[in-house]
Amino acid sequence: MSLSSYFTPSPGGDTAFTVEAPKIKFGIGSLKEVGLDAKGLGMTRAALFVDPKIMGTAPFNQVTEGLQSAGVDFTVYDAIEVEPTDTSFKAATAFASEGNFDGFISLGGGSTMDTCKAANLYSTYPDDFLAYVNAPVGQAKQPPGPLKPHIACPTTFGTASECTGIAIFDFVEMELKTGIASARLRPALGVLDPQVLKTLPAMVVAANGFDVFSHAFESLTARPYTHREAPADPSKRPLSQGANPYSDLACLQAIKLVGGNLVQAVNDPTDENYEALMFAGMLAGIGFGNAGCHLPHGMSYAVAGLVQDYTAQGWASNHPLVPHGISVIVNAPAVFRFTGDACPERHLQGAEAMGADISDAKPEDAGALLADRIIEMMKATGIPNGLNGVGYSEEDLDKLVDKAWPQQRLLVNAPKSVSKDDLRGIFVDAMRYW
Amino acid sequence: MSLSSYFTPSPGGDTAFTVEAPKIKFGIGSLKEVGLDAKGLGMTRAALFVDPKIMGTAPFNQVTEGLQSAGVDFTVYDAIEVEPTDTSFKAATAFASEGNFDGFISLGGGSTMDTCKAANLYSTYPDDFLAYVNAPVGQAKQPPGPLKPHIACPTTFGTASECTGIAIFDFVEMELKTGIASARLRPALGVLDPQVLKTLPAMVVAANGFDVFSHAFESLTARPYTHREAPADPSKRPLSQGANPYSDLACLQAIKLVGGNLVQAVNDPTDENYEALMFAGMLAGIGFGNAGCHLPHGMSYAVAGLVQDYTAQGWASNHPLVPHGISVIVNAPAVFRFTGDACPERHLQGAEAMGADISDAKPEDAGALLADRIIEMMKATGIPNGLNGVGYSEEDLDKLVDKAWPQQRLLVNAPKSVSKDDLRGIFVDAMRYW
Repeated sequence: MSLSSYFTPSPGGDTAFTVEAPKIKFGIGSLKEVGLDAKGLGMTRAALFVDPKIMGTAPFNQVTEGLQSAGVDFTVYDAIEVEPTDTSFKAATAFASEGNFDGFISLGGGSTMDTCKAANLYSTYPDDFLAYVNAPVGQAKQPPGPLKPHIACPTTFGTASECTGIAIFDFVEMELKTGIASARLRPALGVLDPQVLKTLPAMVVAANGFDVFSHAFESLTARPYTHREAPADPSKRPLSQGANPYSDLACLQAIKLVGGNLVQAVNDPTDENYEALMFAGMLAGIGFGNAGCHLPHGMSYAVAGLVQDYTAQGWASNHPLVPHGISVIVNAPAVFRFTGDACPERHLQGAEAMGADISDAKPEDAGALLADRIIEMMKATGIPNGLNGVGYSEEDLDKLVDKAWPQQRLLVNAPKSVSKDDLRGIFVDAMRYW
Repeated sequence: MSLSSYFTPSPGGDTAFTVEAPKIKFGIGSLKEVGLDAKGLGMTRAALFVDPKIMGTAPFNQVTEGLQSAGVDFTVYDAIEVEPTDTSFKAATAFASEGNFDGFISLGGGSTMDTCKAANLYSTYPDDFLAYVNAPVGQAKQPPGPLKPHIACPTTFGTASECTGIAIFDFVEMELKTGIASARLRPALGVLDPQVLKTLPAMVVAANGFDVFSHAFESLTARPYTHREAPADPSKRPLSQGANPYSDLACLQAIKLVGGNLVQAVNDPTDENYEALMFAGMLAGIGFGNAGCHLPHGMSYAVAGLVQDYTAQGWASNHPLVPHGISVIVNAPAVFRFTGDACPERHLQGAEAMGADISDAKPEDAGALLADRIIEMMKATGIPNGLNGVGYSEEDLDKLVDKAWPQQRLLVNAPKSVSKDDLRGIFVDAMRYW
C-alpha cells in the first residue's frame, strides 16, 4: 500500500518535502482568551488593528474586554483598506511607529492581518518601503531580526493570513498586486473562533468558502513534489513544494467540509456549519502553505486587478472590486475541465468530496464532473456566472491573458504544462457557465 | 455536518484546542541533505550522536559524507544506552561540554535523540542534573534560553522524539522512568528518510509499528478536549489536550497506513511499506503530541519497568528489556475491550482502518472486534502473547497495578474513568490472548 501513485519518482525530480504548521488556537470562545494570550506573550501595550466593520461587534468586545481584564493597554487602529495599498501600509506604519507598542493584535480579514504584519515590520525595522517588498518590484530584503509578537484573529475564513508570513497589497503606481514574504512575518499565534462567522454577510461566506475549496483542490492537484526539479541545496526548496502526502490529507478533509457545509452556511446557517468551515479554512491554509496553488489563483490576480465597474454585495468598498474568493472561483470550473485529464482520479476524489455522485464516472469525465458540481454550488450560493458575471467580455481576453501570464510561479504548479493559448482557452471557457 | 459528535460541548468543559506541528523533512534521500541542513542552521562544528548499531551503515555514511562536503566539522559520540539513564545522560553531557560544539545531530532511535537533547541542554545551560527533570522527581526548571540547533534523524519509526521537546530516561536510584520536557528541547529539524527502516530487524519493525498504531488509536479515543475542564488561563491548557479534530485527521490516516502495511513490512517488506510506515509514525507523532495517549502507554511503564528476565530478539541490550512498542501493544487488546463501550463508533473506525471487516458489526462488539484484529496482527508479526509472553504471571498483578496507577496523567486521558480495580482487570485480561 503506497502513499499514492501520484508521487511516483521522476528523473531529476525531488524526493523530499517539508512539513510545518503555524501555531493556532481553534474553538468557540477563543477570542475571550486573547487578553491572556497577549499577556503570556509579554505584551503590556498592544496595537489593536481592527476591520472597521468589526468595531463594536461581539468579537471586538470579547477581545477588548479580555485585554482590559488581563491588564494589557491597547490602542485601536481601524483605518484598514479592504484591499490594502502601499499608501495604507505606510499610514499604518506611522501609527505603529508613534505608539511605541510591544505587541500587535489584528482582528479582521486578510486585509487587516496583512496591514498589521506590515506595520509591525516597518515600525520594528524601519527601512525604505521597497526594501522588504518581493522582487522584482522590491529588494526582497529579509527582516534583520524577529518582529514583535502578533496575535492574528481572523473574522472571516479562508485567507489563512493567520498561518502565513505573507502580506499582500496593491502597489498603486505600478498597478499591480505584490507582497512581502518572510517567515518572520508569521503571527506568533492565530486565534480561530468560529463564532466570528456570524458577523459575515451571506455572499462573503460563499466567496470565502469557495476560496477554501480552491486552495484545497489546487493543492491536491498541484504538480506532485516528485515532479519538481530537485534543488541543489535544501534551503532552495520552494515554499510551494507541490502536492505531497501531508498536504493531501489536510486538503481532502477541507474539501469534504466545504462540500458538506457551504450551501447551508450561505442559505440557512447553523453553528456547526460555521465551525466546520472555519476548520476547513485552517486545514486548507496548512495544505496550500505546504503545496501551493495553481491556475485558479494565478488567473484571479488578473480578474481582480483589471476590474472595471463590478461591485459585490456584502463588501464595504469605496471602489469597484471583485472579491478574492469570487475572482478565484469564476475561473475554477474552466480550469478543472482543462486539468481533468492530468490526474483524473484526483478530480473524481474532489468531486466526490464536494458531494457529487461519482459511482458511474469514467476517468475521462473527471474534470467535467467536478466542474458541474462546482457550478451547481455556485448557483446555490449566488456566485456570479463566470467572468461575464463580474463584468468581463470576450473583448477583455487579451488583457486578462497578458495580466495572468506573468504569474508563472503559480502556473508552473499546475498538474500539466500551460501555454499562453491554453490560458486564453481557459479564460474563454470561464466567460459563462449557465 | 458537524466536525464530530464526539466533541459535543460539556458543562465546564474546554471549548478550544491548539494546533502545532514540528518542522520535518520527509523523503528518500533526505539524509544526504543533512550536511547542508546543518550548514544552513549555522553549524561549523557539530556533535554527531549515533546509535552504535548504525555506525558504518548507509545512513551513517550519507550523513557524514554530507557534513564533510558541506564543510561542517563533526565529532561522533556513540556511547548511547538502549534505554538511557541519568548516568548515560551525564556522560553524554561531559562529551558535549568538552567539545565546544555549535550544533547537534542525532542519528538513531528515541534513545539516541533523547540523549542528544539532554547533552545539548546540560552543556548549553549547565545546572544540577535534577534542575530540569520533571517534577516531582526534579524541579522542572525551564531552560533559560534557546538551545543550540539540533537535527534529529530517526533510524527507527514511531518514537516521534524528533517531533517533541521531551527526553525520557531511567532514573536509576529511584527505579523509575521520568524525563525532561520543554519546547526548547524540540529539534530545529527532524529528517525522516524511509530508507533507514531497511536497517531494522523484523521484530523492531513489528514493535515500532504497533507503537505507532497505539499512539494513533489512543489519541483517537482519548477523552475529547471538550470533556476536559476548561483552564482558567490559556497558558495552563495541557500538552495532552484530548482528542480533537486535528489529531483525529492525522491519527486515522496513521492507523490506515499501519493496517495496510505492517504485516507485509515485517514479513516481506517493500520500499513502499517502509515509506508508508515512516509517514504513519510522523502523523501519529503529530497526533499524540496534540491529543495525548492513555491506558496502553500508561500501563507500558509498569510492563517495561518491572521486567525480570525477558530479552527481545533484535535489540542489542546488556540487560533484560521489554522494548517499548511491545510493552505497549501487549496491553492494547485488553484495554480496547474495556474502552469499547465508551466510544464504540471510534473503535469500529479503528478496526476498519486496521483492516477488519465491520460490515455486520454492532456497537457492542466494537472493542472486541478491534482487539481481535490487533491479536491477529500480533500473531502475524511474531509479537509475544500478552503479559505471559514477556515473562509476567498472575503473581505480578499487584506490582503491575501499583506501578501503573501513579500514571494518572495518562489514565485520566482515557475515554472513561478507570478505577484501580478496573486497571487490575485489564492487566488480568492482558495476560494471554491465544
